[in-house]
Amino acid sequence: MEEPFKKTGNDIKIAVIGGGTGSFTMLSALKHHTRQLAAIVNMADDGGSTGVLRDELGTLPSGDVRQCLVALSDSPKIRDLFDYRFEEGTFGGHSFGNILLTALEKVTGSFSEAVATASEILRVNGTVIPATLDNVRLKMEWPETSVILHGERVIDAKYFQHDPRQAHLALVPNPTANPMAIQAIAEADIVVITPGDLYTSLGPLLIIDGIGDALRESKALKVYVSNLVTKNGQTAGFSVGDHAAEIERFAGGHFLDYVLYNKQQPTDDVAARYKQEGAYITPVDMDVLHKAHYKTLAGNFLGTMAEAHTADIIPVTRSLIRHDAEEVARALMDLYETYGERR
Amino acid sequence: MEEPFKKTGNDIKIAVIGGGTGSFTMLSALKHHTRQLAAIVNMADDGGSTGVLRDELGTLPSGDVRQCLVALSDSPKIRDLFDYRFEEGTFGGHSFGNILLTALEKVTGSFSEAVATASEILRVNGTVIPATLDNVRLKMEWPETSVILHGERVIDAKYFQHDPRQAHLALVPNPTANPMAIQAIAEADIVVITPGDLYTSLGPLLIIDGIGDALRESKALKVYVSNLVTKNGQTAGFSVGDHAAEIERFAGGHFLDYVLYNKQQPTDDVAARYKQEGAYITPVDMDVLHKAHYKTLAGNFLGTMAEAHTADIIPVTRSLIRHDAEEVARALMDLYETYGERR
Repeated sequence: MEEPFKKTGNDIKIAVIGGGTGSFTMLSALKHHTRQLAAIVNMADDGGSTGVLRDELGTLPSGDVRQCLVALSDSPKIRDLFDYRFEEGTFGGHSFGNILLTALEKVTGSFSEAVATASEILRVNGTVIPATLDNVRLKMEWPETSVILHGERVIDAKYFQHDPRQAHLALVPNPTANPMAIQAIAEADIVVITPGDLYTSLGPLLIIDGIGDALRESKALKVYVSNLVTKNGQTAGFSVGDHAAEIERFAGGHFLDYVLYNKQQPTDDVAARYKQEGAYITPVDMDVLHKAHYKTLAGNFLGTMAEAHTADIIPVTRSLIRHDAEEVARALMDLYETYGERR
Repeated sequence: MEEPFKKTGNDIKIAVIGGGTGSFTMLSALKHHTRQLAAIVNMADDGGSTGVLRDELGTLPSGDVRQCLVALSDSPKIRDLFDYRFEEGTFGGHSFGNILLTALEKVTGSFSEAVATASEILRVNGTVIPATLDNVRLKMEWPETSVILHGERVIDAKYFQHDPRQAHLALVPNPTANPMAIQAIAEADIVVITPGDLYTSLGPLLIIDGIGDALRESKALKVYVSNLVTKNGQTAGFSVGDHAAEIERFAGGHFLDYVLYNKQQPTDDVAARYKQEGAYITPVDMDVLHKAHYKTLAGNFLGTMAEAHTADIIPVTRSLIRHDAEEVARALMDLYETYGERR
């Protein structure tokens, strides 16, 4: 695993930036359009099976990496194995893929080696790149108050008492970006920021020193695929523009060329189910979007309700609404064709 | 995994029958002489990591199968992964290969599928065949007494109060032999019974209905590679001939063409170290061997002292003496050349 993209072939090179489920969904769809995919993955996860393994064995977080590997795998049988979660006994709740990545890190002494070997085993088409190879924990702090939250798991479960847009997000200790991640962003034709939790998935990745600058310097078409729904107690009321603004705040400034958002309304019963959980379709703030430095593209991106696939912790009370990832992928490819000509 | 041996190629076909370490050692040496190896593996193990997984998840025993897979693997990196044993935390003491086989059995719903997929992952040259696919436990019973021992782990740790040659060994419930095992024995040019614990490794395999008959019917050269040392409290004082007699008792009658045994004496300090543990070089009973229905071949088969490799349970008080497996393999191949002509 030395280069983010293959040197041969003229497929479009796409770097996909994000965490678990959002990246999984986008990679699963984009792989039908190109074989040149690099998934840059959040490394702040410390919950669930991943968290236990980190705490007990001092290894790096495997959950999000595992999901990206599975998305890019060509072997259905071994994909099922990676996704398998033990139901009982000593291993109850643990995902096999996490155990494998942890064992590989122990055996090879390096998380990148572990990811490379797992990629071989899974016959992965593409490259999975941990955003950093440092062992970090997430911290969220409101400078005007005394509130400090420690750890991705804690922050993820929190109902924020203060506006998160005033909060400072940091990784401890301050990590170095994986050079492969920087290279992937530099070489990509398209960079996709996938939908994902702002403060526990996208934020922890985009704040890494060097990532923001790489995004601004890259010649790629840079697109954020906006979250479909808001998260109760964290991003309630956040519009598409608010999401994009936070994304760019994390990255230290403007870099987005395009924001893709959904304009489709859910059916009444789906909406009702969401309302129960305090989640709502992300509102579209046309005034703000029209004035934004980035362009926007609206589509009917609402997929069918999905069952949890490989999420590391599945909050029981939270249903899962998904993008119609095929539709989003097609929109991205169309966008690139148009944009490529003007570039 | 449908055929024990490939239909193409004119390599000598060797079926190796045994348990963990003995099979591991012989397979590791024999693979330099042929690519047509079938390892038929004892399935009564219920100790250590394997035992915990069996008890908790109801899966078949993975430890001995794992060792054979590792021996036949072409991928050093993935071999190391399979052999990795977690040192601490929830998984402490568990071997990664066992976890993988267990997860695969759960995912595929079948232990043979699990072995086949693990073989792919490990790039195994050859075939690893569980002797039975039934979930069985070992039982050892002295009919003249009221003593009944249950479970491989219990029997393995026992200091027998009665002569084990009077004991009845059984699997509960009475299993069906894996048809692949029967086929491998039938098609083999050589069948090797590897050195191994008589009552907890070789016995539990050879007593399976159909295995003994297959051995007697097979046109293969059938060789038992005699144990190097006796086991304290179980086979103390057993000669080479005594070992061979028990092997044939388990299989329900004569089938051996040859017994290979070691005639080399250990150095004084190795002997002293063994004596401490009540283990002795297996005595050679020339009178008995000369009268036996099988032929014998004696060699200098003593290897250097080895560190434990992948044994599932390593009794702390028991050092490890190993065959010079390369020497044994060469002797077997020479024997076949000679025998093949007379066949």
